[in-house]
Amino acid sequence: MKLSELGEFGLIDLLAKTVGTSPNNQLLIGIGDDAAAWHGDASIQLATVDSLIQGVHFSLDIISWEELGWKALAVNLSDIAAMGGLPRYALVSLALPDSTEVEEVIALYKGIIELAKQFEVAIVGGDTSSAPLVTISITILGSTKSQDKHVLSRSAAKPGEKVAVTGYLGAAAAGAETLSKQLQFSPEATACLKEAFLRPYPRIAEGQLLVEQGVKTAIDISDGLISDLDHICKASQVSARIEVDRVPILPTVKTNFGDRALELALSGGEDYELLFTGSAQVVDKVRTATSRPVTVIGEVVADKIGAVTLVDSKGNPFNLTKVGWEHFTLR
Amino acid sequence: MKLSELGEFGLIDLLAKTVGTSPNNQLLIGIGDDAAAWHGDASIQLATVDSLIQGVHFSLDIISWEELGWKALAVNLSDIAAMGGLPRYALVSLALPDSTEVEEVIALYKGIIELAKQFEVAIVGGDTSSAPLVTISITILGSTKSQDKHVLSRSAAKPGEKVAVTGYLGAAAAGAETLSKQLQFSPEATACLKEAFLRPYPRIAEGQLLVEQGVKTAIDISDGLISDLDHICKASQVSARIEVDRVPILPTVKTNFGDRALELALSGGEDYELLFTGSAQVVDKVRTATSRPVTVIGEVVADKIGAVTLVDSKGNPFNLTKVGWEHFTLR
Repeated sequence: MKLSELGEFGLIDLLAKTVGTSPNNQLLIGIGDDAAAWHGDASIQLATVDSLIQGVHFSLDIISWEELGWKALAVNLSDIAAMGGLPRYALVSLALPDSTEVEEVIALYKGIIELAKQFEVAIVGGDTSSAPLVTISITILGSTKSQDKHVLSRSAAKPGEKVAVTGYLGAAAAGAETLSKQLQFSPEATACLKEAFLRPYPRIAEGQLLVEQGVKTAIDISDGLISDLDHICKASQVSARIEVDRVPILPTVKTNFGDRALELALSGGEDYELLFTGSAQVVDKVRTATSRPVTVIGEVVADKIGAVTLVDSKGNPFNLTKVGWEHFTLR
Repeated sequence: MKLSELGEFGLIDLLAKTVGTSPNNQLLIGIGDDAAAWHGDASIQLATVDSLIQGVHFSLDIISWEELGWKALAVNLSDIAAMGGLPRYALVSLALPDSTEVEEVIALYKGIIELAKQFEVAIVGGDTSSAPLVTISITILGSTKSQDKHVLSRSAAKPGEKVAVTGYLGAAAAGAETLSKQLQFSPEATACLKEAFLRPYPRIAEGQLLVEQGVKTAIDISDGLISDLDHICKASQVSARIEVDRVPILPTVKTNFGDRALELALSGGEDYELLFTGSAQVVDKVRTATSRPVTVIGEVVADKIGAVTLVDSKGNPFNLTKVGWEHFTLR
């Protein structure tokens, strides 16, 4: 059945049924009223929104509806992770062509719900519109664990701090290229790279841990390592120096993309790992507290405000042309 | 200058400067980080999102960028009004073609900021994307005035209650027709109708007052009086009977649209007045407490669950074909 047969209000009823009732006992009103409502508390509140637009951020030739739902939620949860918060509530704003099949919308929600359940996020509202292109805009409301915690910002980096990153980089960009160019590696490698791009995993637990261990500055890697570190530098009015040989590249990317692996890790983006700064001791504490790899890749420096410098293992300048993703620019 | 010359990060910097710092002393982090952050409290929290899409909800031949900014915020604030809440924070998600002029985006924000200031709403974040069509999606976070207040829902209407509405209806739909068909009335009438459509005013103060006077059920009139009353009936599992002669139509609409005025008032939508139910005494208390007109237009009845019946002054059935706006449906 197409949305044009079901109608907007039929769709809203169906989505409310698909989402079901939330186990969140603070929730007063979910989907189906003018606004969602829940009992507030004295913790720090967090809010973020991110949109995925057909033809700009995704192609339905490459991503399935279910994967799209997962990813649309994941990129938003990642922003809450980068603040060291816990996600609580989600609003889903959907624009869909009239010709969309109801089953496709259900699949989209299946992907959203699968990830939402893992973090006990309640889907509490949103809106639906007819439009020529598919757009999914998700708002996440989150909070700190308790009222005495701080949040991670982009603007607290200090000269002398180490720059560190969770996990491995490059897989999402390698996966995007694997999908768009229909590259074939070993079945395991191909599946691993595609999964990294299609179903990124938000580092909520790691963000929490950063807060607990005293980290003050973090960002999630969405635009690309260099570009996102540049955001920290500009917001903190410092610079940073990265030793490119230290950047943790996923072995599968190194094996299959050879010389291009470093570029994918530095500029590819969409890995949704956390990039953070802290004293050597704080970074060591983080490394000890988590099972996920934590790698020091450079340090914060005071000179040349707002710039990221790349060096090789001998400290010599390292050049790289492509530095990240930015909307609107002519490239 | 076009957005393609300014770039995404240049635009974000410019928007942060345009919005300026918020006077809200609970705000910790505004535009420019991974998420906005503020100090929470124990009041009931409210969240709503609504998107306006070019070619679906608006045409730039009819609405200016500044009016579009105002309206995009107004329709969202209206949802908070319908809950009896106070709006606090806004996230603005923008999709814009590369060819958009920077001045157009600034004008859009001028409209948003002008209305935001009236209700002390802080614009704390959002996102920007390149896209073929203009889409503005605004999320509003609000709350009740203090922790012991209830919120207005769609689902609390009881048989025997009166159905009442604030203000006058029909002007927004008449304004839309005036603009799209380039109709000409007296200069005052033309301006009044256009204004009703282009710059709706959210009834935040009236929503607050409904809560204070003990009203439990309300909705804002966005889809149209009949359609929105239908939402209340279905959510409350009751029916409603409307005496069409009692529906308050704006005199300017009556004068200039003659026989069609009633249809515009009943089904036109976008008036963003509040439609509510309550006992005769509660409605009287509301009427006494506000300077805005409050009109009883019918009553809640127990029979035929979820249906709206129209009757004339003699109680005879009244027929009307067009009943409101719904996305995706084939008409």
